[in-house]
Amino acid sequence: MKLSEIGERELIREIQAWLGAAGPGVSVGIGDDSAVLSLTAGTRLLATTDLLIEDVHFRRRYAGYADIGWKAIAVNLSDIAAMGGRPRFALVALASPPEMTAEDVEALYAGMRAAAAPHDVGIVGGDTCASPDGLIVNVTLLGEIQGAPRLRSGARPGDLIAVTGSLGLSAAGLAVLEAGAPPGLPPDLVAEVCRAHLRPTARVAEGIFFGQADGVRAMIDCSDGLVIDLGHLAAASGVGAQVRLDRLPIPPSVGRVAEATGRDPAEFAAVGGEDYELLLAITPGALPALVSGLRSATGTEVTVIGEIRAPEDGLRFLNAQGRPVALGTGFEHFSGP
Amino acid sequence: MKLSEIGERELIREIQAWLGAAGPGVSVGIGDDSAVLSLTAGTRLLATTDLLIEDVHFRRRYAGYADIGWKAIAVNLSDIAAMGGRPRFALVALASPPEMTAEDVEALYAGMRAAAAPHDVGIVGGDTCASPDGLIVNVTLLGEIQGAPRLRSGARPGDLIAVTGSLGLSAAGLAVLEAGAPPGLPPDLVAEVCRAHLRPTARVAEGIFFGQADGVRAMIDCSDGLVIDLGHLAAASGVGAQVRLDRLPIPPSVGRVAEATGRDPAEFAAVGGEDYELLLAITPGALPALVSGLRSATGTEVTVIGEIRAPEDGLRFLNAQGRPVALGTGFEHFSGP
Repeated sequence: MKLSEIGERELIREIQAWLGAAGPGVSVGIGDDSAVLSLTAGTRLLATTDLLIEDVHFRRRYAGYADIGWKAIAVNLSDIAAMGGRPRFALVALASPPEMTAEDVEALYAGMRAAAAPHDVGIVGGDTCASPDGLIVNVTLLGEIQGAPRLRSGARPGDLIAVTGSLGLSAAGLAVLEAGAPPGLPPDLVAEVCRAHLRPTARVAEGIFFGQADGVRAMIDCSDGLVIDLGHLAAASGVGAQVRLDRLPIPPSVGRVAEATGRDPAEFAAVGGEDYELLLAITPGALPALVSGLRSATGTEVTVIGEIRAPEDGLRFLNAQGRPVALGTGFEHFSGP
Repeated sequence: MKLSEIGERELIREIQAWLGAAGPGVSVGIGDDSAVLSLTAGTRLLATTDLLIEDVHFRRRYAGYADIGWKAIAVNLSDIAAMGGRPRFALVALASPPEMTAEDVEALYAGMRAAAAPHDVGIVGGDTCASPDGLIVNVTLLGEIQGAPRLRSGARPGDLIAVTGSLGLSAAGLAVLEAGAPPGLPPDLVAEVCRAHLRPTARVAEGIFFGQADGVRAMIDCSDGLVIDLGHLAAASGVGAQVRLDRLPIPPSVGRVAEATGRDPAEFAAVGGEDYELLLAITPGALPALVSGLRSATGTEVTVIGEIRAPEDGLRFLNAQGRPVALGTGFEHFSGP
């Protein structure tokens, strides 16, 4: 059904019905001028916001509405995770293009809910309007943290650089989604990399673990790509960094897609971005406890990929022979002529 | 300077410099994965978000960047005010079209800061990206409230309907901005109505006053127009309402613009929207104390314009002779074929 046949007030009622009862901490949810919320006693508030715009952050050609909704929540969950905090509440502002139906909006919200619900994050408010052109989704995520947040600025020379999970799947998926699957790749491998791009998993439990663990000096999520995000961490900390590309946790499927598309798996992993893994600077002595603690708490692996250096060393990416490699710079907004 | 010459990281640094030091309650502001914030002890969190899209909510043809920034903050301040709360922190997501320069972004932030600073609201985080088409600004405003919020749902038959300040200036300004000033209107009158539309004032101090006063049963801000917003309040409260159009606080300049453009001043006041006044349902006995208390606390007048009725009476707008008048329905997103 067209949104113009429903009207804004009825659409908001439908959204309320799709989302169901408000969760803990929600005194007033969707439907008044503001949400009224309670944080856990003794915590501070975390707040982050991300704008997703059609043909900048996603394409409706291959991303379904539920995928877009999922991703809008996941990228914000990842920012809360990168502080070591617990996500609590989401606000969603949606501008829908003329052809979008009520069923499409429902699918978008279903995707958001699917990403949010496992973390007990409720969608508590928002805004809806018409968009003259593409689809626009803005999500603000509110979280809470007990104790000190994990900042980008705490890394010191001698710290180890570590990353959760794996790198490169999302960029491999994007390559396949943009250009089509190259011949010869098994369907389940294609599905794996596409899913990694369309439905990224934020490392929420891992972030909470690192937020409470000893020896984590700095943390950031890998959204713009390892090169850019490590650059952020190094700049904020006033340090240099050296990464061994042969140590990057690159799954075999990334290598298969790289081979089939004539690309470099290390580029997918170091430049591609959107893996939403956590990138950390940790004190060397804390490594064994962090690796085993994270594994037993979450099942997730953490891999050491390099070390923090003095600022004059800059950012260096070395190959297996220890020689510096020039890499692209990852995704840069405002690039162009 | 073009944003593509600066890059995202440098732009964020410039924004930090324009905004200056973070205010009270801000442990971590712009520049990390999330803001880290503290609310006043004993308060609950308020959260609201509003998306402003070019050619839906504003036109760059007559709205300067500072106007757009101002309005993006003001409309959110108004939502916090309508709960009776105190605004604290803003997050800003900005998608800038290709032709927008760093100076334009600075003007936009200057407008936001001008709207936020008088209320000690700091801009503590956000997101920046490129927009393929128009300018997009999303603001999320976080506030706090001690005690019970003022909801839309508390009105009861017999309550008086009251409104702060005046109605119609913004719609009169929009008419002039869209079609050009009709001949014969004095320049200062044209400037007054245009300013009301481009730089609306949220009733922040008034909202805080009503949030602590006795006898305020329901409150909403007049953003979509009296007809729609009173409809929201009536629907949420399960009541009807009757308004006397001859009692609406319509300034003389609205009448002058209406006359010069062949429009009805009551339409500007009741349907136009974007005045960002507060609309209240109050118990009759509380009226004298609310009027004098608001005047001495803020200098703002409050006018009784009607009364809450039984639900079966519906929404009725009467002229000076007490006869029902048919009005347009105010701004409806998703209208169209």
